[in-house]
Amino acid sequence: MKILLIGANGTIGSAVAKELEQRHEVLRIGRSSGDYQVDISDSASIRRLFEQTGRFDALVCAAGNVTFAPLDEMTAEHFALGLNDKLMGQVNLLLIGREFINDGGSFTFTTGITSHDPIRTGASASLVNGAIDAFVKAAAIELPRGLRVNSISPNVLVEAMPAYAPYFRGFKPVPAADVALAYAKSVEGLQTGQTYHVG
Amino acid sequence: MKILLIGANGTIGSAVAKELEQRHEVLRIGRSSGDYQVDISDSASIRRLFEQTGRFDALVCAAGNVTFAPLDEMTAEHFALGLNDKLMGQVNLLLIGREFINDGGSFTFTTGITSHDPIRTGASASLVNGAIDAFVKAAAIELPRGLRVNSISPNVLVEAMPAYAPYFRGFKPVPAADVALAYAKSVEGLQTGQTYHVG
Repeated sequence: MKILLIGANGTIGSAVAKELEQRHEVLRIGRSSGDYQVDISDSASIRRLFEQTGRFDALVCAAGNVTFAPLDEMTAEHFALGLNDKLMGQVNLLLIGREFINDGGSFTFTTGITSHDPIRTGASASLVNGAIDAFVKAAAIELPRGLRVNSISPNVLVEAMPAYAPYFRGFKPVPAADVALAYAKSVEGLQTGQTYHVG
Repeated sequence: MKILLIGANGTIGSAVAKELEQRHEVLRIGRSSGDYQVDISDSASIRRLFEQTGRFDALVCAAGNVTFAPLDEMTAEHFALGLNDKLMGQVNLLLIGREFINDGGSFTFTTGITSHDPIRTGASASLVNGAIDAFVKAAAIELPRGLRVNSISPNVLVEAMPAYAPYFRGFKPVPAADVALAYAKSVEGLQTGQTYHVG
């Protein structure tokens, strides 16, 4: 399979690359690193990416920014990043990417445990993760040509605990390599409309 | 209690008014009807509403627009209405309304069954409903002063079936009066961070 991996340089992306490159051609894509570049918050940038990569069999997005801030300090502006980047960025990867994906191809998006197990400062992250998990369920039943779409909803990563531990006290961290397995299940399996919870 | 009811003229809103007016002062608010008017997609309009109503004990939003369209025909623009209106409209009712709500007050938002039981043309509705249900869980744990927030996620309404039946084949419709009970539970009970599924 020819697989587009967005966020290839991140903690999850690196683990997904390691898992999938054993069996597939993986194009590493980043905001500023990798074989190709994309800003997922910009529809024109997404279209340019696909024009450069050409047709493909699977797209994995392990990128997406949201604002973390205490709810007390948040205004609508604090939610805009998450809406434009992690939320509509991933939605647009499907809306535009479907023009370039081969029959039977798959989209795999990244959400997170905060959709249902919230943390302080995480209101925007929860909102975005819940939105994508629900979108995936809905989009799956309308996609043509055997196309599939799933999301991966990981717990906090072992590798992220040095930075994030104070926000995730009591959460049991999961190694990125375990999370990467869920991406392989989504890409190489046949299910659609699923959210794979890891950890 | 002094309760602000947004969408008071709608099918759900009318039933909620009937339920809550037996025991409370209900201010009926609509986009163009009611005691007060508001456009929830406009932060300035929301702030003007609260300046007119003054302090209150509970806010119920039974309003919110999204675009229904076949996924094949949807672009990012089709998602904008739902993001600006039903999604950020309800989020902004909390972000701005918390300045005007009394200690121990509650916000009750409206989502819907499509967050987890999707229908054709409903990708934006599913996304928005999933987003609000997740936001409610997250916001609840950070709200100060005993403030609460819940969402009501109804099945299709009996009263809506003449118009919506073709989109909801096999769904068991629920009377608006039953849905209204969930709003009473949210407003008059003590739970927070809940999504009450009705039907």
